[in-house]
Amino acid sequence: MTGISRRAVLGGAAGVGAAAVGFGGGYAFGRDAALDASHTVAFRGAHQAGIVTEAQDRLHFAAFDVITDKREDVVAMLQKWTDAAERMTRGEEVTPDGAIGLGDYVPPTDTGEALGLSAAHLTLTVGFGPGLFGPSAAYPDRPDRFGLAARKPAGLTDLPAFAAEKIEPQRSYGDICVQACADDPQVAVHAIRNLARIGVGVVSVRWSQLGFGRTSATTRSQDTPRNLFGFKDGTANIRADETDDLNKWVWVGEQDNPPAAQWMTGGTYLVARRIRMDIEPWDRANLLEQELIVGRTKGPGAPLGQVGEFDEPDFRVTSGGAPRIPRNSHVAVTNPQNRGGVRILRRGYNFTDGSDGFGHLDAGLFFIAFNRDSHTQFIPMQQDMSRKDAMTEYLIPNGSAHFAVPAGLKPGEYWGQHLFA
Amino acid sequence: MTGISRRAVLGGAAGVGAAAVGFGGGYAFGRDAALDASHTVAFRGAHQAGIVTEAQDRLHFAAFDVITDKREDVVAMLQKWTDAAERMTRGEEVTPDGAIGLGDYVPPTDTGEALGLSAAHLTLTVGFGPGLFGPSAAYPDRPDRFGLAARKPAGLTDLPAFAAEKIEPQRSYGDICVQACADDPQVAVHAIRNLARIGVGVVSVRWSQLGFGRTSATTRSQDTPRNLFGFKDGTANIRADETDDLNKWVWVGEQDNPPAAQWMTGGTYLVARRIRMDIEPWDRANLLEQELIVGRTKGPGAPLGQVGEFDEPDFRVTSGGAPRIPRNSHVAVTNPQNRGGVRILRRGYNFTDGSDGFGHLDAGLFFIAFNRDSHTQFIPMQQDMSRKDAMTEYLIPNGSAHFAVPAGLKPGEYWGQHLFA
Ligand code: HEM
Ligand code: HEM
Repeated sequence: MTGISRRAVLGGAAGVGAAAVGFGGGYAFGRDAALDASHTVAFRGAHQAGIVTEAQDRLHFAAFDVITDKREDVVAMLQKWTDAAERMTRGEEVTPDGAIGLGDYVPPTDTGEALGLSAAHLTLTVGFGPGLFGPSAAYPDRPDRFGLAARKPAGLTDLPAFAAEKIEPQRSYGDICVQACADDPQVAVHAIRNLARIGVGVVSVRWSQLGFGRTSATTRSQDTPRNLFGFKDGTANIRADETDDLNKWVWVGEQDNPPAAQWMTGGTYLVARRIRMDIEPWDRANLLEQELIVGRTKGPGAPLGQVGEFDEPDFRVTSGGAPRIPRNSHVAVTNPQNRGGVRILRRGYNFTDGSDGFGHLDAGLFFIAFNRDSHTQFIPMQQDMSRKDAMTEYLIPNGSAHFAVPAGLKPGEYWGQHLFA
Repeated sequence: MTGISRRAVLGGAAGVGAAAVGFGGGYAFGRDAALDASHTVAFRGAHQAGIVTEAQDRLHFAAFDVITDKREDVVAMLQKWTDAAERMTRGEEVTPDGAIGLGDYVPPTDTGEALGLSAAHLTLTVGFGPGLFGPSAAYPDRPDRFGLAARKPAGLTDLPAFAAEKIEPQRSYGDICVQACADDPQVAVHAIRNLARIGVGVVSVRWSQLGFGRTSATTRSQDTPRNLFGFKDGTANIRADETDDLNKWVWVGEQDNPPAAQWMTGGTYLVARRIRMDIEPWDRANLLEQELIVGRTKGPGAPLGQVGEFDEPDFRVTSGGAPRIPRNSHVAVTNPQNRGGVRILRRGYNFTDGSDGFGHLDAGLFFIAFNRDSHTQFIPMQQDMSRKDAMTEYLIPNGSAHFAVPAGLKPGEYWGQHLFA
């Protein structure tokens, strides 16, 4: 049976290049390069895609445990993953043989459910967890299996415990993560599934999370979406064109690490938090109460006391003696004006995972943030939230993970090359 | 604070009709009727929408337990649900007051996360489970709480147990279901959430399921999508324009029920099955093996021995003495030629719900079928599948439910009116 390639199917019979042969009657299709190009995000570059990339609509995030002690197996898998990831982000199958290419008596190299779909702006972003370098929260007794302890970047610790969270280990931690973002969920699910398949024997899926709607804007042309509290989320995010802020708050610099951990230069730290939102009590709160908790209006999303979404919050304005934006509001706690200028890049997704078994939807925000140093950015911010943010009353974080996301790849490089090489 | 309506936000500041008033600084926006119309499906009609409606991309399906014994509370909720559902399918908020309309000191009537989104072809389809009429699989000891036993349609029993399934009660059964389909998952999630909210004290969410990709085509203009086995799914489905087959195999006729259950005339039975797919062993099967199990080719989706997707399967063709389409293939077991002409309307969705705790993705097909009589259509088909379909080896059904879906609503009618009135 001859090859069938993904984009090809979009064009129907156009580009048929070979007659049907073999038992099942296969076809070879040509690819539609123009369509590909308009739906793809470059895989290689100074930084990994999927960070400042215009936030796609859907997410499939997976955290893997590395289940082997053999360093060369991990490296070989990362090499295969890189090839596969690059191909899939171009809208192609996992291998040139495609979903039905190798013949009747071989399992297809690609699982096939993305045949006929565009690349849908797929990005695949890889990160390495503390467990790759030795003992970790998930496996406190595990040795440094791959001789990487010396290469562990200073910033890559397990996240500390925060007040008012209920962390479930089966939704937390992980030795390697892959964030798949795409405008079509089937494309994101296909990508994670095929990477998991390539990794059989080397990694196993520890947890995975589907996000159905983005809660951030990362470029100026993007509308601000809404989270499940009904508020615009992502308004004050760092945007892709804020180069100075990205260099200051997102990308790891040379000076941040000793020579042995220079593989992190140009990278960033990814914080993932599965935050269940207590939507029923929230929905019973008055509009004013909701707005005072967030610090912004529900309609246009303006800072309280201002009119437009993108007006700067003014924390000095008072009303009846009290600050117009309450000090315990989410915006007051997290805004850079009150944090010595500190910012983070948020790129989270709404989730709904069925019922909680008590008659309510298990819904919330799968919070993803990228920052240059979680210890001076995300962690103190989350500590302040846990301590004084009024929103915390409505939040139950139950998943938590921290990953070191290396810089982007130059041509020919593979994921983790500068870490393992 | 003045009203803000959903569609309105799409037009940005266009149509601002009132000055900002109140604490948070609200706006009134005009609606964009043209955009609405192009993204809406009519809510009322001879049959409910969401059955032969061109299959939307995403699903949020919820099953509710009725937790009250008061018939009038159930009726009042169904009336409120109907109003809300009709509004939401038009792309509007749950009530005319909208997400921020009633003022600072009232909880908003709409939860707000769909502000700014189109109706996305939202359909909401309601169904009634056996438990509404007396004892059921979920609550075997429950009496006929609402005096409806006599009105129970003959066809509405709990589904029987099938071989090789592992039914989990917390993913199964339910007194009322609502199927929300939309091209934007946030719109489908918003709809279910707001209905759940309206139902507080009357119903509680028993289970809910997100489906990220459709696995059926219901109109001829729709491409056939692929399921997680990588095969086209929905090829031989009943299409919306096959009026004779719909009347024969989908819509309940007058003659099907005694006078007391005539409320089902023009309705249909919904079968929901959460079918976990064993994708890892499947992915290890040869291409030929996969095709022999399905009875179709993986690429174009043609019946084995034929060339095009829509060619009729020919079960007489042999190859080396054996039928070209094996007798135990899924298509041979389910095709009408081998079932005395019996057909069903399939309208399922792919799902991926994180990891199964054993290193694999919990992924599969949320199978939804509509048929006129599950006892002569779905049930024997599933029994034959369980007994002889080779695909069964790769399937673990773990959720199961059966609902009576009444006919569509005339102007002024509410969901369940002919059942309760
Ligand atoms: C379910 C949990 C959360 C919800 C619903 C939520 C919601 C919001 C909303 C509505 C805004 C205002 C609009 C905007 O600028 O994006 C906001 C801003 C922000 N949030 Fe959150 N958030 C959550 C969790 C977190 C967490 C865990 C952090 C970090 C520890 C965080 C950090 C921020 C920051 C830095 C801003 C921007 C503040 C500013 O610059 O004005 N949020 N969030
Ligand atoms: C995860 C479970 C299932 C998978 C992966 C699956 C997959 C497929 C595929 C690939 C086809 C061929 C293309 C098409 O005509 O749509 C098909 C056809 C069909 N399936 Fe399934 N199916 C599943 C479960 C079921 C169940 C539970 C039933 C009903 C008991 C069913 C009934 C049918 C019918 C009636 C057809 C059309 C057969 C024909 O007319 O040729 N399927 N299915």
